[in-house]
Amino acid sequence: MLIATALVLMMTVPALALFYGGMSRSKSVLNMMMMSYIAAAIVGILYVAVGWSMGFGGEGTFFANPFELFWLDGVTTDGYIFVMFQMTFAIITCALISGAVEGRMKFAAWVTFVPIWALVVYFPLAHMVFSCTDDSLICGRIGAQDYAGGTAVHINAGVAALVLVLLLGKRVGWPRDKMRPHNLTLTMLGAGLLWFGWYGFNVGSIVFGGESEEADMAQFLSETGRTFANTTLATMAAILGWLVVERVLHKKATSLGAASGIVAGLVAITPAAGAVDIEGAVAIGAIAGAVCAWAVGLKFKAGFDDSLDVVGVHLVGGIVGTVLIGVFSTSDGAGGVDGLLYGGGVDSLVDQVLGVLVAVAYSGVLTAVIALAIKYTIGLRLAEEDEVGGIDLAAHGESAYDLHTGVGGSGNATSVLAPKTQKEGV
Amino acid sequence: MLIATALVLMMTVPALALFYGGMSRSKSVLNMMMMSYIAAAIVGILYVAVGWSMGFGGEGTFFANPFELFWLDGVTTDGYIFVMFQMTFAIITCALISGAVEGRMKFAAWVTFVPIWALVVYFPLAHMVFSCTDDSLICGRIGAQDYAGGTAVHINAGVAALVLVLLLGKRVGWPRDKMRPHNLTLTMLGAGLLWFGWYGFNVGSIVFGGESEEADMAQFLSETGRTFANTTLATMAAILGWLVVERVLHKKATSLGAASGIVAGLVAITPAAGAVDIEGAVAIGAIAGAVCAWAVGLKFKAGFDDSLDVVGVHLVGGIVGTVLIGVFSTSDGAGGVDGLLYGGGVDSLVDQVLGVLVAVAYSGVLTAVIALAIKYTIGLRLAEEDEVGGIDLAAHGESAYDLHTGVGGSGNATSVLAPKTQKEGV
Amino acid sequence: MLIATALVLMMTVPALALFYGGMSRSKSVLNMMMMSYIAAAIVGILYVAVGWSMGFGGEGTFFANPFELFWLDGVTTDGYIFVMFQMTFAIITCALISGAVEGRMKFAAWVTFVPIWALVVYFPLAHMVFSCTDDSLICGRIGAQDYAGGTAVHINAGVAALVLVLLLGKRVGWPRDKMRPHNLTLTMLGAGLLWFGWYGFNVGSIVFGGESEEADMAQFLSETGRTFANTTLATMAAILGWLVVERVLHKKATSLGAASGIVAGLVAITPAAGAVDIEGAVAIGAIAGAVCAWAVGLKFKAGFDDSLDVVGVHLVGGIVGTVLIGVFSTSDGAGGVDGLLYGGGVDSLVDQVLGVLVAVAYSGVLTAVIALAIKYTIGLRLAEEDEVGGIDLAAHGESAYDLHTGVGGSGNATSVLAPKTQKEGV
Repeated sequence: MLIATALVLMMTVPALALFYGGMSRSKSVLNMMMMSYIAAAIVGILYVAVGWSMGFGGEGTFFANPFELFWLDGVTTDGYIFVMFQMTFAIITCALISGAVEGRMKFAAWVTFVPIWALVVYFPLAHMVFSCTDDSLICGRIGAQDYAGGTAVHINAGVAALVLVLLLGKRVGWPRDKMRPHNLTLTMLGAGLLWFGWYGFNVGSIVFGGESEEADMAQFLSETGRTFANTTLATMAAILGWLVVERVLHKKATSLGAASGIVAGLVAITPAAGAVDIEGAVAIGAIAGAVCAWAVGLKFKAGFDDSLDVVGVHLVGGIVGTVLIGVFSTSDGAGGVDGLLYGGGVDSLVDQVLGVLVAVAYSGVLTAVIALAIKYTIGLRLAEEDEVGGIDLAAHGESAYDLHTGVGGSGNATSVLAPKTQKEGV
Repeated sequence: MLIATALVLMMTVPALALFYGGMSRSKSVLNMMMMSYIAAAIVGILYVAVGWSMGFGGEGTFFANPFELFWLDGVTTDGYIFVMFQMTFAIITCALISGAVEGRMKFAAWVTFVPIWALVVYFPLAHMVFSCTDDSLICGRIGAQDYAGGTAVHINAGVAALVLVLLLGKRVGWPRDKMRPHNLTLTMLGAGLLWFGWYGFNVGSIVFGGESEEADMAQFLSETGRTFANTTLATMAAILGWLVVERVLHKKATSLGAASGIVAGLVAITPAAGAVDIEGAVAIGAIAGAVCAWAVGLKFKAGFDDSLDVVGVHLVGGIVGTVLIGVFSTSDGAGGVDGLLYGGGVDSLVDQVLGVLVAVAYSGVLTAVIALAIKYTIGLRLAEEDEVGGIDLAAHGESAYDLHTGVGGSGNATSVLAPKTQKEGV
Repeated sequence: MLIATALVLMMTVPALALFYGGMSRSKSVLNMMMMSYIAAAIVGILYVAVGWSMGFGGEGTFFANPFELFWLDGVTTDGYIFVMFQMTFAIITCALISGAVEGRMKFAAWVTFVPIWALVVYFPLAHMVFSCTDDSLICGRIGAQDYAGGTAVHINAGVAALVLVLLLGKRVGWPRDKMRPHNLTLTMLGAGLLWFGWYGFNVGSIVFGGESEEADMAQFLSETGRTFANTTLATMAAILGWLVVERVLHKKATSLGAASGIVAGLVAITPAAGAVDIEGAVAIGAIAGAVCAWAVGLKFKAGFDDSLDVVGVHLVGGIVGTVLIGVFSTSDGAGGVDGLLYGGGVDSLVDQVLGVLVAVAYSGVLTAVIALAIKYTIGLRLAEEDEVGGIDLAAHGESAYDLHTGVGGSGNATSVLAPKTQKEGV
């Protein structure tokens, strides 16, 4: 349990930060990583204050009483581990959004956006999905299956990313100046660590799952074995799915495609890891990899600058995985429901689609309200000259690399501790 | 168990990819990493299809019936974890080979080679070593000890690497243009993560070992303690052994030597981790570090271009570790046999040498057949102009780094998503 | 237990090496990483030889009999895991010191310093703190609480670093040429991995703690839950504390600040993780982050060149955490003592301050003796021309990066295996 929780925290700090950081331009990599790191700090403390209580502090269609378990008052310390586990989900969901706004969102706006969004969008959606009482909207009332966060995490983050980039606008030079990842080794490293950490995400969800509490050891081993295998095989299938589509569409199988395929597969299997068998996992992975590889090109046609493809991977991958539960789930899986392919009819499929629609609507509308409020108060967008000059320097007074004062260099560049060339007001 | 499996998967993606990637030239780092990532995807799915069945689906001298447990049919989900654990061994063995062919093997040839080699070479050798029935050649008939893969993993990969480079030929400019690692921080990182992950390799092999199933907790703790300590101390001794030899031969103790020493020590202790005591582990580590440090220079004399020293580290280190079991094993260890130094006579030593010879012969002959078949059909070797220009660009349409569009850059380099300058047919 | 131990080893190799390596100049990053890697190898083997015995081989005010359990003679293999766990503490403490001497300490001097310092300073302090018999000075006689190494690890390393830089002197050009981290993505990665690994540090200390042995499962879950939550929340609060102070003092919240805040928070909560509740953990983290952010500027006023702020983070953070136990500890925590704020009076606070003073005095005096002995024999300081030219080349015959022989490059740079341009005597 502890390991699972530590792994999921590691997915944000440093894995996601590296994955996104490597895809950023070298003038914005530090800001990109900082968006993840600061989200971890802010959301973590906020989660302990009211997030846990809003999620698990009682019943409610949208959320529970934020003050029932305020600051974990009334939670025994042996329950802290599950609180921490859920906290890491809140953190990574917020951090995921940052990939869409590379290099052009004021850092102060991000620091303002994150806690409000967590409070208004994530904590309620986590209640609707993970606190599965009769009242909670997605899990209880609709009855949609979401094993480890297809709706609350990935669709939610993907929709928020889309709304945010529509309100923030495109980066200077888009689409003429292509986005070129500045360091693909970091992206590959980040994707590899995400894969490693994701076992905490999916397997940890069993360990903490209500079912396994009363179950015997054999049942537990059976569920973890299935979930582990499904997570692994879906990811592998998604790598192949992505690379094949990429090869067909663009004539090359790229390392960025392999890294993105890993994430797409993991996203899609997240809601389904406990519900399907290994054939279903391979199918979901392959479909997600292929569909996302195609979907990341849509932004050029639709004209929105989702810089690092949060929409194409997390929204699309999350929808693929959540909806396909209705097709591939088997009755001996976690949900106990047969999907369309296994003779269960369309009921499960309809529930899954409803779950997706609620998540999209809830996240979309409220993210828009929050982003608009920030836009017309402190502003969302960095000044154009700072964007062109690089947000790392403008917002943090730093640049990521100094590789050339190596041999015989004097090293007299701008110090990060006593910078002379800073600009204020970012 | 789950953690051990996740750790061993992490050894390939991303640890080995980083270790090798850092040693590559900057024009081939992405291809090097891709060889590991695509091997994980292909071999993982192939393992579930027939690999497990060929290894553990029954008796046989060389392999078991591939269709007995086809696609895990007949395996209960609580057994999936051990399947996944064995899968990760297959993956890393294939990925290890890639270090030898840096920058000059067609990506299509690699994608063809990997599944055939896994099917024809690895799956059978894994059966001979890990499926220890009376019939299986190395463990059963010969009775050689191999704790966690000295023969099936390291000697196997090392021999295959040697055969492959002999058929593939030297890179353009060898040996005049020395291979210089393009990013040693990645190599150091990769070596550190390999060390971390290797505990999954060696300690996981106890957890899954047949012996511990019926043993009590004290026995289990005793074996894991011994294995953990042996793995740790052999690695430390190997770092020192490598650096001392390097200092004597070349006047400097290098960071590449420290990173290579880590891997050499881990390789050598892999077959022996359960069989020896801590004095034996330190001896094996120190000897492996020293011998491998010397052995990596042999390629210049023998005239083969094993680019990242797969032969010098994995073949030589694997032989050192496997053979020295016959010298240092103790009867209270996993194999219950005293080695030469502990009064057990030469019997064990002879068994170990026989095990090595079988692995070398089996892997060598069949790898040659596969590689020749590919050479005379789709071809092994990249076109010379693509090799000189860089395989990353030629095969994947990418280059790893774009560090200079940092401040004020326009970033209008080749997009990986809509590349215009691609070359086909790679 | 195994995982906790592997995690703490991973904190040194590669996490700390990356954290420090990224902050180094590009001409000294490999040497910086090598200082951690070689310390792991040397101290690990020395610990098995005599370190364990000096720590836990019996009673004694300062240390136990080094030969009682020489080379683990008399330790059963099921006890090896705890030996390995304690070994990793010894390793990271030595490695922490290296950050202070960036780019200017002879590698031979470091290789000499490390084992002597471990023997004379660390092993005894570990006995005084972790071997809590009536005799042992800090834990037994004084009765100071130190959960996982505030005194023995962080204050100890911080004091040693201060003494060493005072005897070694400032780098060429200090303070005119500011230290600029050469690769902040490595530092961010290292900080993230340190955070991940630190759960092994703090949570592992419960698992191995004497108390939990006789305790029931509920007690164990309660303690691990508390420790995990405290470690997490203190780190998050420290990030925010550091960034707020940095924003006020220097107008920018930097990524280096976020990474340093992570470490400062982890350092400060290390001694206190089991003793305080979550409010206390947040307070200690926030205070440590804020105080350390201010303290790292002191070296410029005091005129000592603690290059990567070992003093400002580990000494100051260690003191903050150790002393604040006397303020924030609660009687239901691991120590069973109420601090000042919880009505326990100043007794606990006085014990904590005494513990700090003993650690400072012991480490300070003996480190000075060792460093002076080396200074006047083989010498501490690299030749000035080698320092200016870069210690990586001078000491290891390597440079970290070769990013420009990428496309079409000949790669005919100095080989690390057959270097022609080496200088001897380093």
